[in-house]
Amino acid sequence: MTEPVFTAPAAFLARRRALHAGLSGPALLAAGEPASRNYPANRYGFRAASHFLYFVGRPMAGSALLFEGGRTTLFTHPPDPEDALWHGPRPNLEVLAAEHGFDAVLPLAELDAVLGPIRATVATLPTQDAPSAAWLSERVGRPVLARTGAHLVDSRDAALADAMIALRLTHDAAAVDQLRMAARMSAEAHVAGMRATRPEGRESDVHAAMLAVLRRHGLDDAYGPIVTVHGEVLHSDTHANVMRAGDLLLADVGGETPEGWAADITRTWPVGGRFSTTQRAIYDVVLEAQYAAIAVATPGRRYRDVHEMAKRTIVGGLVALGIFRGDVDGLLERGAAALFFPHGIGHLLGLDVHDMEDLGDRAGYAAGRTRTTRFGDRYLRLDRDLEAGMAVTIEPGFYQVPGILGDARLTAPLGADLCRDVLAQYADVRGIRIEDDVLITSDGNEVMTSGVPKLATEIEALMRG
Amino acid sequence: MTEPVFTAPAAFLARRRALHAGLSGPALLAAGEPASRNYPANRYGFRAASHFLYFVGRPMAGSALLFEGGRTTLFTHPPDPEDALWHGPRPNLEVLAAEHGFDAVLPLAELDAVLGPIRATVATLPTQDAPSAAWLSERVGRPVLARTGAHLVDSRDAALADAMIALRLTHDAAAVDQLRMAARMSAEAHVAGMRATRPEGRESDVHAAMLAVLRRHGLDDAYGPIVTVHGEVLHSDTHANVMRAGDLLLADVGGETPEGWAADITRTWPVGGRFSTTQRAIYDVVLEAQYAAIAVATPGRRYRDVHEMAKRTIVGGLVALGIFRGDVDGLLERGAAALFFPHGIGHLLGLDVHDMEDLGDRAGYAAGRTRTTRFGDRYLRLDRDLEAGMAVTIEPGFYQVPGILGDARLTAPLGADLCRDVLAQYADVRGIRIEDDVLITSDGNEVMTSGVPKLATEIEALMRG
Repeated sequence: MTEPVFTAPAAFLARRRALHAGLSGPALLAAGEPASRNYPANRYGFRAASHFLYFVGRPMAGSALLFEGGRTTLFTHPPDPEDALWHGPRPNLEVLAAEHGFDAVLPLAELDAVLGPIRATVATLPTQDAPSAAWLSERVGRPVLARTGAHLVDSRDAALADAMIALRLTHDAAAVDQLRMAARMSAEAHVAGMRATRPEGRESDVHAAMLAVLRRHGLDDAYGPIVTVHGEVLHSDTHANVMRAGDLLLADVGGETPEGWAADITRTWPVGGRFSTTQRAIYDVVLEAQYAAIAVATPGRRYRDVHEMAKRTIVGGLVALGIFRGDVDGLLERGAAALFFPHGIGHLLGLDVHDMEDLGDRAGYAAGRTRTTRFGDRYLRLDRDLEAGMAVTIEPGFYQVPGILGDARLTAPLGADLCRDVLAQYADVRGIRIEDDVLITSDGNEVMTSGVPKLATEIEALMRG
Repeated sequence: MTEPVFTAPAAFLARRRALHAGLSGPALLAAGEPASRNYPANRYGFRAASHFLYFVGRPMAGSALLFEGGRTTLFTHPPDPEDALWHGPRPNLEVLAAEHGFDAVLPLAELDAVLGPIRATVATLPTQDAPSAAWLSERVGRPVLARTGAHLVDSRDAALADAMIALRLTHDAAAVDQLRMAARMSAEAHVAGMRATRPEGRESDVHAAMLAVLRRHGLDDAYGPIVTVHGEVLHSDTHANVMRAGDLLLADVGGETPEGWAADITRTWPVGGRFSTTQRAIYDVVLEAQYAAIAVATPGRRYRDVHEMAKRTIVGGLVALGIFRGDVDGLLERGAAALFFPHGIGHLLGLDVHDMEDLGDRAGYAAGRTRTTRFGDRYLRLDRDLEAGMAVTIEPGFYQVPGILGDARLTAPLGADLCRDVLAQYADVRGIRIEDDVLITSDGNEVMTSGVPKLATEIEALMRG
């Protein structure tokens, strides 16, 4: 295994200083509490809130970070002897402070006393779990609701959210190292997945092979892995289907580093090791759309234009195949793209796979921009002007979703220009998506996930090997 | 892969009828809501509440089951078109009713109207997540707190808990099929783990190999897997250590079937493929204790006696090795066992790996029995008289925990009868545990997890092979 990369304390320190510079009052960020699965002691693997991880780099359940007057203090549970028995010895508070470069590390029990004089001015951000939201409410003396970052009613909290967005929207060098590591290891998982694919095997065989690579590298899942012969179900979460020689397998799988940074990769490959003529034709349309979108994902470009570029390329490709008839502009106008590509071209990537989606569209949409209500486009999660240091996914797709192609409200505007007799020849293409992680650089971009084959011929060669 | 076994609708129907027979009023059981990880749409894999799964067999987030007047009605989200796009088509309510044999399946929106006249009499049990506890509170018109099954203050709820315990304490044939399947597949994972162990590799290599077997079989983790060269840390949850040739590796890993039934297996094996003389000596003491405990885990025996049998065998074995000096009864009296075996001999096993621990000790302890405060024994999770149909784990261990062996309050009663100079020779034994899943039968018991080697020589042979 490759040695994992860890962020140096100095990088965390620099981030904390940068937040201090962006704050006009004190701020309290909570790590959150573990969620119980079926009984209190049986918990999901704890994943701390990203705003906390950004400054600390390790999940410390129940802890909180106070920014005040230029000082950063970590409040955490002091080690206790029972811990040593069940969970191993933990460093004491002085050691933690020294290792992490906090100005102080104090027991959680002292937080209220410290907050006392500044309580009315403290900003905070909710975590995902209700118990720690309730805990935050008690600390700051006003309601803080879980999962509701999208609707920050308190102006202090909104200002803190904006300060966090300003920091996290473009990635520092340490963050880029983490993202590249997640990308590289996740790419390796996709290669293993291609190699593990056999006709008459199950999706779970491939899922298991990919997971094994991530876990060997110490990576958790950044999101629920999709490994399915039914790519047309966008968020399929079962892996029980038997794979047939003529099927395409769609795998949307990405790992998360121990410090919490995500990768997000999709590849679609032929179970039998060779694309059929029809599968290859559509695959090449999606791939062309991806290349075209990546080409325009550069500093200063509006992300919505990247989305439009992908739509245009897909519709153009489908016209060339005879699936659509007419001019591309008119077809786009009439909603042609969303019939086969009903989601957005991508999203921000960082500590969260949809980075800062806990803050709703506040991070993804620039001030003054909002989502459209139009089918397809309304799922676009990002509409900012791209800047060097941002990381985004680029993930066009083609899907034959019965619920869309059978919905007259969506297909009527196309009329006979949607050539269903031609489309019928492509019945062996249920769903294709090709997704890479792209770092915007000052002179263009860098595809961080280039370690996994993408050309149809490359994929076939790998699967034959 | 082996085809998974699914429980027939008739078995679920029989369970529902049995609950009706044990109820004196209506009851509402909720499946619970998914927990968010770092933002609302990024969720932990949803695991429904076991009391719900027991009657339904599949996780249906947000759903609830109403038992009333002999009828069982499932209330659930009706399928909607967005679902079909993102999660695939779902069966409509009539199909669900027919497939599962419910008396009716109704939209959740109709629950309040149905509850109206009986609201004041409805019993319920809390789930683990706060949002569904709040939802239950609104339904039944009184506080229902998450994670607090241990403290059921409402007498209706307590009666429902007791009815559930009466049902789930002994397993029907379908449940036994599920437990055997989980046991068999988890045993296979342990064999794969032994085969994947290499000096200078990492714990995560072994973790990955074991996980791959579980996932290939479609099994989730029944609990957070422990795979560690530091077996003396009882609930170690990291897998990053490099394994050295002289280390023992302790793996406590068990899968959960798609219907939610658990396995719980621990094996300890030598990283280099051969136990040292000292490791083998201690290993054999633990194994002897396990055999002795299993031998007395039979119908009519009190589980605490099984625990005592293990303690006695361990202390006797350590006397034979010269680690303790004196008579076994006196040593036990002075707390000798807990110095090296500080936890309980096991627990109930079923839908939960600690079955029904959401109800606190109400399930694990027979009426009139409570936990002792004595170190070691206070972690015993089960003290009932065993009955045919119960499933329990039997998991003795030996650990050198610095926090225990350095605690004068615990070691003082032993004085010089704890022979530290002899113990020092066993420094290469940090932690050993051997755990199997045992079904109590009318004529004794059945070790369901016998598919994984247990004798030191068997393990060595497998690792050489």
